[in-house]
Amino acid sequence: MRQQKQEEYRGFRRAGIRLTEELVPSLVSHRSDKTLPRLYAFHMFDKAHIVMLTEEALIPRVDGVAMLAALRRMESEGVDAARLRVEGGMHSGEQYLIRALGESVGGRIHLGRSSGDLGEVSTRLYVRDRLLQVMDKVLEFCRVLIDVARQNLDTVMPGYTHAQHAQPTTWAHVLLSWVSVLERDFDRLSLAFAHNNRSPAGAAILTGSDFPLNRHRVAQLLGFYPPEKNTFDAILSHDNLFHVQSALAILHMNLARWSDDLMLYNTSEFAMIDFPDRFCGTSSIMMQKKNAYAPQEIKGAAAETVGGLMTAFVVEKDPTAVPILDREATRAAFTRSFDKIVRDLGWMIEFMPVLELDKKLMRERAGAFWAQATDVAGALVREKGLPWRTAHQIIGIVVRYTDERRIKPMEITPALIDEAAVEYYGQPVGLSAAALADALDPVKSVERRTLYGGPAPSEVTARLAEYEAALAERMRSLGEAQAHVRSGAAALEQAIDKLLA
Amino acid sequence: MRQQKQEEYRGFRRAGIRLTEELVPSLVSHRSDKTLPRLYAFHMFDKAHIVMLTEEALIPRVDGVAMLAALRRMESEGVDAARLRVEGGMHSGEQYLIRALGESVGGRIHLGRSSGDLGEVSTRLYVRDRLLQVMDKVLEFCRVLIDVARQNLDTVMPGYTHAQHAQPTTWAHVLLSWVSVLERDFDRLSLAFAHNNRSPAGAAILTGSDFPLNRHRVAQLLGFYPPEKNTFDAILSHDNLFHVQSALAILHMNLARWSDDLMLYNTSEFAMIDFPDRFCGTSSIMMQKKNAYAPQEIKGAAAETVGGLMTAFVVEKDPTAVPILDREATRAAFTRSFDKIVRDLGWMIEFMPVLELDKKLMRERAGAFWAQATDVAGALVREKGLPWRTAHQIIGIVVRYTDERRIKPMEITPALIDEAAVEYYGQPVGLSAAALADALDPVKSVERRTLYGGPAPSEVTARLAEYEAALAERMRSLGEAQAHVRSGAAALEQAIDKLLA
Amino acid sequence: MRQQKQEEYRGFRRAGIRLTEELVPSLVSHRSDKTLPRLYAFHMFDKAHIVMLTEEALIPRVDGVAMLAALRRMESEGVDAARLRVEGGMHSGEQYLIRALGESVGGRIHLGRSSGDLGEVSTRLYVRDRLLQVMDKVLEFCRVLIDVARQNLDTVMPGYTHAQHAQPTTWAHVLLSWVSVLERDFDRLSLAFAHNNRSPAGAAILTGSDFPLNRHRVAQLLGFYPPEKNTFDAILSHDNLFHVQSALAILHMNLARWSDDLMLYNTSEFAMIDFPDRFCGTSSIMMQKKNAYAPQEIKGAAAETVGGLMTAFVVEKDPTAVPILDREATRAAFTRSFDKIVRDLGWMIEFMPVLELDKKLMRERAGAFWAQATDVAGALVREKGLPWRTAHQIIGIVVRYTDERRIKPMEITPALIDEAAVEYYGQPVGLSAAALADALDPVKSVERRTLYGGPAPSEVTARLAEYEAALAERMRSLGEAQAHVRSGAAALEQAIDKLLA
Amino acid sequence: MRQQKQEEYRGFRRAGIRLTEELVPSLVSHRSDKTLPRLYAFHMFDKAHIVMLTEEALIPRVDGVAMLAALRRMESEGVDAARLRVEGGMHSGEQYLIRALGESVGGRIHLGRSSGDLGEVSTRLYVRDRLLQVMDKVLEFCRVLIDVARQNLDTVMPGYTHAQHAQPTTWAHVLLSWVSVLERDFDRLSLAFAHNNRSPAGAAILTGSDFPLNRHRVAQLLGFYPPEKNTFDAILSHDNLFHVQSALAILHMNLARWSDDLMLYNTSEFAMIDFPDRFCGTSSIMMQKKNAYAPQEIKGAAAETVGGLMTAFVVEKDPTAVPILDREATRAAFTRSFDKIVRDLGWMIEFMPVLELDKKLMRERAGAFWAQATDVAGALVREKGLPWRTAHQIIGIVVRYTDERRIKPMEITPALIDEAAVEYYGQPVGLSAAALADALDPVKSVERRTLYGGPAPSEVTARLAEYEAALAERMRSLGEAQAHVRSGAAALEQAIDKLLA
Repeated sequence: MRQQKQEEYRGFRRAGIRLTEELVPSLVSHRSDKTLPRLYAFHMFDKAHIVMLTEEALIPRVDGVAMLAALRRMESEGVDAARLRVEGGMHSGEQYLIRALGESVGGRIHLGRSSGDLGEVSTRLYVRDRLLQVMDKVLEFCRVLIDVARQNLDTVMPGYTHAQHAQPTTWAHVLLSWVSVLERDFDRLSLAFAHNNRSPAGAAILTGSDFPLNRHRVAQLLGFYPPEKNTFDAILSHDNLFHVQSALAILHMNLARWSDDLMLYNTSEFAMIDFPDRFCGTSSIMMQKKNAYAPQEIKGAAAETVGGLMTAFVVEKDPTAVPILDREATRAAFTRSFDKIVRDLGWMIEFMPVLELDKKLMRERAGAFWAQATDVAGALVREKGLPWRTAHQIIGIVVRYTDERRIKPMEITPALIDEAAVEYYGQPVGLSAAALADALDPVKSVERRTLYGGPAPSEVTARLAEYEAALAERMRSLGEAQAHVRSGAAALEQAIDKLLA
Repeated sequence: MRQQKQEEYRGFRRAGIRLTEELVPSLVSHRSDKTLPRLYAFHMFDKAHIVMLTEEALIPRVDGVAMLAALRRMESEGVDAARLRVEGGMHSGEQYLIRALGESVGGRIHLGRSSGDLGEVSTRLYVRDRLLQVMDKVLEFCRVLIDVARQNLDTVMPGYTHAQHAQPTTWAHVLLSWVSVLERDFDRLSLAFAHNNRSPAGAAILTGSDFPLNRHRVAQLLGFYPPEKNTFDAILSHDNLFHVQSALAILHMNLARWSDDLMLYNTSEFAMIDFPDRFCGTSSIMMQKKNAYAPQEIKGAAAETVGGLMTAFVVEKDPTAVPILDREATRAAFTRSFDKIVRDLGWMIEFMPVLELDKKLMRERAGAFWAQATDVAGALVREKGLPWRTAHQIIGIVVRYTDERRIKPMEITPALIDEAAVEYYGQPVGLSAAALADALDPVKSVERRTLYGGPAPSEVTARLAEYEAALAERMRSLGEAQAHVRSGAAALEQAIDKLLA
Repeated sequence: MRQQKQEEYRGFRRAGIRLTEELVPSLVSHRSDKTLPRLYAFHMFDKAHIVMLTEEALIPRVDGVAMLAALRRMESEGVDAARLRVEGGMHSGEQYLIRALGESVGGRIHLGRSSGDLGEVSTRLYVRDRLLQVMDKVLEFCRVLIDVARQNLDTVMPGYTHAQHAQPTTWAHVLLSWVSVLERDFDRLSLAFAHNNRSPAGAAILTGSDFPLNRHRVAQLLGFYPPEKNTFDAILSHDNLFHVQSALAILHMNLARWSDDLMLYNTSEFAMIDFPDRFCGTSSIMMQKKNAYAPQEIKGAAAETVGGLMTAFVVEKDPTAVPILDREATRAAFTRSFDKIVRDLGWMIEFMPVLELDKKLMRERAGAFWAQATDVAGALVREKGLPWRTAHQIIGIVVRYTDERRIKPMEITPALIDEAAVEYYGQPVGLSAAALADALDPVKSVERRTLYGGPAPSEVTARLAEYEAALAERMRSLGEAQAHVRSGAAALEQAIDKLLA
Repeated sequence: MRQQKQEEYRGFRRAGIRLTEELVPSLVSHRSDKTLPRLYAFHMFDKAHIVMLTEEALIPRVDGVAMLAALRRMESEGVDAARLRVEGGMHSGEQYLIRALGESVGGRIHLGRSSGDLGEVSTRLYVRDRLLQVMDKVLEFCRVLIDVARQNLDTVMPGYTHAQHAQPTTWAHVLLSWVSVLERDFDRLSLAFAHNNRSPAGAAILTGSDFPLNRHRVAQLLGFYPPEKNTFDAILSHDNLFHVQSALAILHMNLARWSDDLMLYNTSEFAMIDFPDRFCGTSSIMMQKKNAYAPQEIKGAAAETVGGLMTAFVVEKDPTAVPILDREATRAAFTRSFDKIVRDLGWMIEFMPVLELDKKLMRERAGAFWAQATDVAGALVREKGLPWRTAHQIIGIVVRYTDERRIKPMEITPALIDEAAVEYYGQPVGLSAAALADALDPVKSVERRTLYGGPAPSEVTARLAEYEAALAERMRSLGEAQAHVRSGAAALEQAIDKLLA
């Protein structure tokens, strides 16, 4: 057994050192395909770690400089390509450097560092970068929804509960409810970002190093917040994994719910909205079909994200640090979920403003199936002083009459109400025809709902200002996070420039 | 059909009003058993709603006063008992008042309100109260762990990864990693609290009311933060449900992981810790058994909490507001999870300080299975200037020798290292016996790890101050939330006193 | 420490024997509430075990007889009540017998047996009994559906895919698709029954006993199939747990899917079916509401069953036999799921035959949204020899024309088809008006689908005979399983009678 | 708009026919990457469908022959490559044929068929082929385990429950428990195979065709069992999806449990088994590490399979046929799970026979932590006629004494038992030293367990014959299934040969 030749260096795991057999081929782990989305992050960490080792004089300055120079050359070649050429994976930096500079120089990069560091640092860099991307898309979607809402303040439509007509509302009111949800999604993602952007670097995998690594410096160079204050926690705890995937699952299931709404409203029976053709496909047999593809894809992807959360829980049901390689299953779920969520937000951002609404039908339907019944009972309270429950029961009887006698809501008369009142408590109520007509009008029903948060156009207009303010505040907060990350990247390059100078 | 007699009032759903049949008995929903944990919350909301209706002159002042007086009488009887007497459930307030005061008075309570309000307001009151309880327990657990850690700064033990000996650490270092996790749990629960303590009251279920309800006043009287700014969002969105259950699932799975750790360390083979007998049971056949019961119960309960989260996701996979009754499945999961988590934190708070540690064995084991190998390689770097990878490979060969030759780690010599060095790259390294002995000592290994967050007793001591500060900050934050809730309760009683005066 | 007085016997776990402390109250396991549904099964096993011990002369005959006589007395008192009086749980038999007969007699019951036996035997007895109950309900539901189908052979309605109108079908055809699913559910439950009804008794919990227990005899007395052939497998494997809960989850999700279908068809927009009032409820505010309660409850319960499956997977993610107490979480899921599935099948059996169908509307809708388009293209193939794809594309253009020009399907003419044909490939096709009219008729569309398994009334009638035969075969198979179980119960009582004689 | 040129044919979905826009690129569905594993199955179905259309004279014989000849040419080119060249996906057959033969010929292939047929037929072909592969591996694993068990009849080791020493058993006994599990896995997979191998072909997607397709003929040509008897059920039901994934999840979680067992036994503390180096890897920092990679990968993959099941449930929580594209998420889970399960069974088949067992330590440990205590109490019953419970309590006290006095199990004396007996009930029991020694010997403990299914070598030997018989029976059953599938393939080629002749 001899040290491997520089140009043929195949890594520290080769048979004959600690172990006596090469890994079975199907088991080669840390391999390229699994870690591909994080190759760039290994590179960042390699650079930051060498800078720190050099600055702290933990390795000879000349070796540190040589390694940084080599990594700069790698960049000119293309980081991913160069790393894949030397087998990819988390140790591709060391492989590249030892091949290029020999073990006497390149063999110094990994001082005080573990595969655990590489796995966790790269995961956090990746996760925080993707979280910022998703957060940005979430706010862009809020922007779009607020704009569409502003144009639909008086687009009256039925509101449903239990899949039945409940009360009239407006498209603006509905869309702003989505924005409220997205605000909370942003908050959940922000907290996940804050927790994930703490630096684990220097934890090795549980106890750090007997070399005095400067963990704060590496954190700074990677755009992280200050390091985790316990090295055992930094990598071996599993709550951050769960937190990220659950925040994604919640967001994705929100998108899935709205997709289900749109598919329902898009049926021939509901017929309230239509998708642009480019989000739909026809059938190979039923050529009449205009199947809404995008919402189905979103729903399927959301189900995968929920499945990924379940995977994470099952993986981590074990004593601490028993599952290590198993965790790649969770990381694979991350990648799928981030990719799909960004895609799905992109689609919704594109199609929501161009959905075709049948506003006339929406308004008609808002009054066609008794959604305004609450208002008629309300009129009895307001005009006639009835207790709510009495008014409610009388109109309940009226609705039953209309069912039994095939009368449409718009056709009922004060006399019918009196008939019901007599049945209920022996005397008529005498609501005026004008008051009744007013109560039956779904547009007026909406206009009457001026309480805080209600669908009246006047009220929604007032709330739009709050939504705008909330959006501006979250954009500011996102901007700060982005700036922090950028400042790390800048500091890293400056530090390298200084050392190479 | 006539109005029901006051004393026999059975609610607004009886056959003959809107519908013609009584509900099949097995389907009676909103029933006592499902809503039992929230009866107190219906009561609070009943009071706050009547106060607001009265103050805003939406009902006659005399009727409002009469209803509040009746509810005060109910309290002297016992709220739960009185409400269960009138069939329990969310409409038990109205039932009680109509029976006591007639429909002409008691029939006024529900003005502008929906079952949707009752369901959501009570759920949020319940959830926020239980969240505060859990958050309080989490901080109490932090307090206990910090104290136990302080007493175990030098309790050296093996640290594991991949279920294999990795590097020596200390019990204090391990326990503080738990505190780090619990800090993040607290943050996740805090965000869930902040989102859930926004008032939905007045949303009816989607569009609010045509009566000018004062939603801010009800929010104040219930100790909520200001109302949700969109009534459609307030009740029909599902993200808060997911958020609460996922925060609980993450916390519970953390407790489960530590339970698994303790069970592993408690095996006859690991033998590092022992539980007080009162948390254990013996077998009906194998009388030698001292089975650790508490950690198994915790793990089983955590699995139920994860199952509850999946239930929530499946329930809500539907268009908006199609699942309404189905949501009780999620609420049932909440109750189970809150109950069990409070129980489980209570157990851990009790047993963690009194676990019996075999400190002598822990220390022996820390050096018995090569956990200190990293330090021997480190010595080659420090003392002999070797590149890390070269040192790593040489000691890798040494470890293989000790395997093949049945040598214990503590027995290796500089000569053996030289043999390996010669095998690796043709020349000996000449590490001194003193340096080797130093490197092999697991206690010194721990003491050398003084980097930020590392296990060295000096470093852990320094970090304890940060943990104390973080705990104090979270206690302050929890105190504020508790005070806000209490201020609502006080305001509510004051408002009633004033109206009754 | 002295032996406990007979009448005060509190069980073998009291402090002072193996352990020194009483279990913390919140941890008392094996306790009544958890095992309540299985009390009857402990009783059966107690009797069978004593019979076998006595027959095999492993205990003095006189003691065996005394114990069996005492258990017969317990039955006259009521098994559940008597067992709960002595603290309930799996050891309530021993508790009762020692209190009644002293430890010198009653202390002999548990020879060769473990809590593991009690847990698993009772679980399998419970599971197999509930499985038989569910299987019986499944076949009853098949019976109902076949009957309703027979009455709806010509109830033409639209069929949907992607939530869009696809092709016309009939209610009979749809309902028989449900029967096909239920047939497979029955098969899955049958396999679960076959696996679960193997006797684990005598396995203790992993290695059986050093006493020569007759495991085949106990199996026979309990109506089990022959014993599991490996005692380690009998209790510690977890696949049966997963299998039962997954078979239940699949069945329950089938019921949930159909519930979702019914809710969709019950919307005001689809308006094809209506529920009897007794399965619905109205709203406390929106008195027009007739909310379908039953399908929502079914869907919520199905979500709980899926959650229970996830709980089982998380519980059992551990080395073998590490989770023991944790398994109660899975058993709790069983009980919830069995109860709800029996309830839900009962509801569907009741309401499916009395759903109100708007057959006229269903038929109209079947032709209103181009569901018959495939047939028009088919006519071009049949009548004019066009390749399918050519015909498909031409009619695709026709559908687009009708969209653009607001023409209804029933209004199109041969000329319009020719216009499309010319656009597509430059020449008209000349379909006759008669052929077109025929193709456009949804009733004829259904009648044309006479291929095997298709919706044509003639074909469905032919298939009904196959459904009847399949049902009869499964009823026979269920009857055999029931008879086997009954034969065990009879053998047990006969054996006791013989010993007591 | 003109018909597409033959050689440029791009499919029936191009803009300008039914829809006016091209699908957004990120939405192109049915695309190559998703359906890649099923390309071969589309090909089989294309051939069988054309054969049937031709035989039934539903298309001109000359066209049918031309298409079959073209598909044979495609085979000489390589099916996957040729299909990917024409954009891949489910319609690659039609694309290829229209490009090759023009729409007037190639446009005839899809008569009476839908994308629904293509999706479901290919999924079932794929699923049944993979199920057969997995079933084959399961039986191969049984074969290996039985052989290893036969070599380890007297490899005595501790058995554990609650993670504590329970009773001695043998490696053979443990491994045969695995075989019992795998037998049930095989049964579950067999049922899934039987259900999935029913032919859906000809269902279009819900109502079949107005052309008289011969569904039985296609079923035969594809090696399916007879067609599903209801076309609505054939594709739109979701229970088969759940059944397949749940059978896989149960199997995979069984492999995961055993992997967890092996990892536990492989710890330095348990130290009972060791893996061949080729299934392990070392660390980049802790060079002493020999981390067991294979079991971790298995556990992670099992967690993914469980996640896939959850995905399936969430996807299908919707009214019938609303999720269509979404179903690809479930199919993606299938592919991942099949691939990983085959891989994982392959690893276990390879490493189980070559695990290094420390038989001496296993035997020592079997008596070192009181696993034999049950036998000592048994001796009191057998030798001294004590009731079991009395003996149990006395030995419970003895174990406590040994704990308190630091006595090892093997060191106890009859006097110590008498001391405990006096404490328990006031008199000594007088067990002989010889009887005690016999009871304490773990090897004899195992030998005494000769009851049916117990670990005694004599008993295990007897059971091996049953295991062999069960394996032979299942191999026969698998062989029949494989033969049926092969017969379909042969019939298909013969039919083509005949038509081409």
